Amino acid sequence: MTKIAILGSGMMGSALSMPLADNGHDVHLVGTHLDREIIDSVKATGYHTTLEIDMPETVQAYQLEEAEQAFDGAEIVASGVTSFATHWAADQLSKLLRPGQVFVMVAKGMEADDDGNLSILPDVLASRLPDDLRESVPVNAIVGPSIAGELAARRHTCVMFAGRDQAALDRLTETFAGPYYHVWTSTDIIGSEICAALKNCYALGSGFGDGVINRDGVDPDYRWRNFNYEAALISQGVIESRQFVELLGGRPETAEGLATAGDTYVTAKGGRNVRVGRLLGAGMRFQEAWEQLDHITLEGAEAIKQIGGALPTLTERGLIGEQDMPLLRHLYDVITEKRELDMPWKTFFGGQRPYLPPEAVSLKGAKA
Amino acid sequence: MTKIAILGSGMMGSALSMPLADNGHDVHLVGTHLDREIIDSVKATGYHTTLEIDMPETVQAYQLEEAEQAFDGAEIVASGVTSFATHWAADQLSKLLRPGQVFVMVAKGMEADDDGNLSILPDVLASRLPDDLRESVPVNAIVGPSIAGELAARRHTCVMFAGRDQAALDRLTETFAGPYYHVWTSTDIIGSEICAALKNCYALGSGFGDGVINRDGVDPDYRWRNFNYEAALISQGVIESRQFVELLGGRPETAEGLATAGDTYVTAKGGRNVRVGRLLGAGMRFQEAWEQLDHITLEGAEAIKQIGGALPTLTERGLIGEQDMPLLRHLYDVITEKRELDMPWKTFFGGQRPYLPPEAVSLKGAKA
Repeated sequence: MTKIAILGSGMMGSALSMPLADNGHDVHLVGTHLDREIIDSVKATGYHTTLEIDMPETVQAYQLEEAEQAFDGAEIVASGVTSFATHWAADQLSKLLRPGQVFVMVAKGMEADDDGNLSILPDVLASRLPDDLRESVPVNAIVGPSIAGELAARRHTCVMFAGRDQAALDRLTETFAGPYYHVWTSTDIIGSEICAALKNCYALGSGFGDGVINRDGVDPDYRWRNFNYEAALISQGVIESRQFVELLGGRPETAEGLATAGDTYVTAKGGRNVRVGRLLGAGMRFQEAWEQLDHITLEGAEAIKQIGGALPTLTERGLIGEQDMPLLRHLYDVITEKRELDMPWKTFFGGQRPYLPPEAVSLKGAKA
Repeated sequence: MTKIAILGSGMMGSALSMPLADNGHDVHLVGTHLDREIIDSVKATGYHTTLEIDMPETVQAYQLEEAEQAFDGAEIVASGVTSFATHWAADQLSKLLRPGQVFVMVAKGMEADDDGNLSILPDVLASRLPDDLRESVPVNAIVGPSIAGELAARRHTCVMFAGRDQAALDRLTETFAGPYYHVWTSTDIIGSEICAALKNCYALGSGFGDGVINRDGVDPDYRWRNFNYEAALISQGVIESRQFVELLGGRPETAEGLATAGDTYVTAKGGRNVRVGRLLGAGMRFQEAWEQLDHITLEGAEAIKQIGGALPTLTERGLIGEQDMPLLRHLYDVITEKRELDMPWKTFFGGQRPYLPPEAVSLKGAKA
């Protein structure tokens, strides 16, 4: 039996309790200041108010001010804190982590500096830890298609645990993996995190598909939807993800399967990113759409701003060509309201071979 | 203006009329013996009874017995005939094609011989043409995420035209491509067709996700579905497709994007393959499910039988390892009723690293 402390009792942090508790481990779930009601409810009745599921009886819930007690003696520490609070999580963990613990996080995203240098969030978090912890606590990440509520409902879920230290990954795997939680490991944490961050961007874009036919006045019950559109964006997303992985020194094969096709599939199935994509596709400006959604946190929009915003600098530095990443560039222009939605189809998939418009075809002989 | 004859006025054959007619071409649409009512209706009112859409006024409809007249002088010939009737289509085309025409088909699938040798349908069709036609008419294929009704509704659609002759592909592109029909070309027809055939197999499998939670009595309105399950199968499908492309001499990069992630996405969005997958996931035997669906033609089930059935021979011949293609092997076992559905999760993604079950973890020290 291993003792595990989880910081953050949102959907995914809490869902990780299920395979751990079912494996017989001692799970201490610590809410952030935003999770106060969830923790109150779990303490009182075991019911998780946002997952809408009963937590396993052995899971012990703690408010943030009880974190030190909850973390005491933990061998493994997990963070379910959202990507927007990565700096906050690092500050908390700087006080709570102990040398020798193994750490794993679920937040996905990237941060860009002014030169367009992109950092994955596990590295951002690690860089903010005190030196002794940074050297002694391996930082790992969970990626792959995993809707928290489905994991909490004990549905089959296949994920990748990524990190730089295989021994730490093996320790995590033997603790987390079980009959419905299927775990693979990858030492390509760079490639894994890039794909995880980008899939939110492309899933947001896939929402345009439904939006544009709403804008065009197509009856919501009309038989023919816009899946061809969505599929094309998802496909281009896979291509751009792979190129990004190569650019930042990850392994191209990381961009196959779970990290791209699979994770974009579940993300495109619903959630906030797709909802804002739908509103943008229907012709709304981003600020307007964001207001309509009550300023909810949008990981996809933030990732588009961070990663898409770095593209011009990366292009100036000659690291990518002007024709590279056309979809992410367009998503950036739409999100930042620099340009209206006008999908650059012809630039996809490496660009179309030039072809003559129909009216020119009959003149072909004359032109030659 | 180019004259194009289309054999088969089912959904996809007919949908191809839209970009062609909108480009100003002269489209002659010929029904098979199964399309009699559709052609009668298009002739009478322009209404296509299965697409439920009005055809462009310039499209001329023909019954099968008028095919010779319809084909006379066509520069380009397309076939929308289903994969199950590929031999029939070849027989018809043997009479109708003329040297110098460019041919393109939409049927997807593969045929296996007794040694497990797999042939793509364009090659099966070409092999049944008279020698002079086989040498003078390039056979091409359309692949990629394209729901026929959406194309017919003039929705943005990105596809790949694949063939061995770039000049023929360019001729097709300049004829078909337009403002909403976005065309790329690939000379890797082998890889393109393999992915197109396999995506039907994996999309069928993705239907299990919904089926198994129905079997388990989960309320159809319950918030947490089984998308993690579906995403994992789609991801493993991408991995197996790529390996298959390499095995049969295609280019691995063909298995990225449109041909796998994109095409599986639209196929998993609905249709017959997913419906039978759902019934199988819910615990029905294949024959029972097929009966419930009134013995509809199931391209996915047929592809699983043909390609999955070749796997043991390919393994015996040492061309693939026993651990390769575990998902396709299991789909074959389920479809042929050799085994009940019991997803071999641990064999996915190259196989999980061995890990100790929880009860063994505490004995680790003692064991070492």
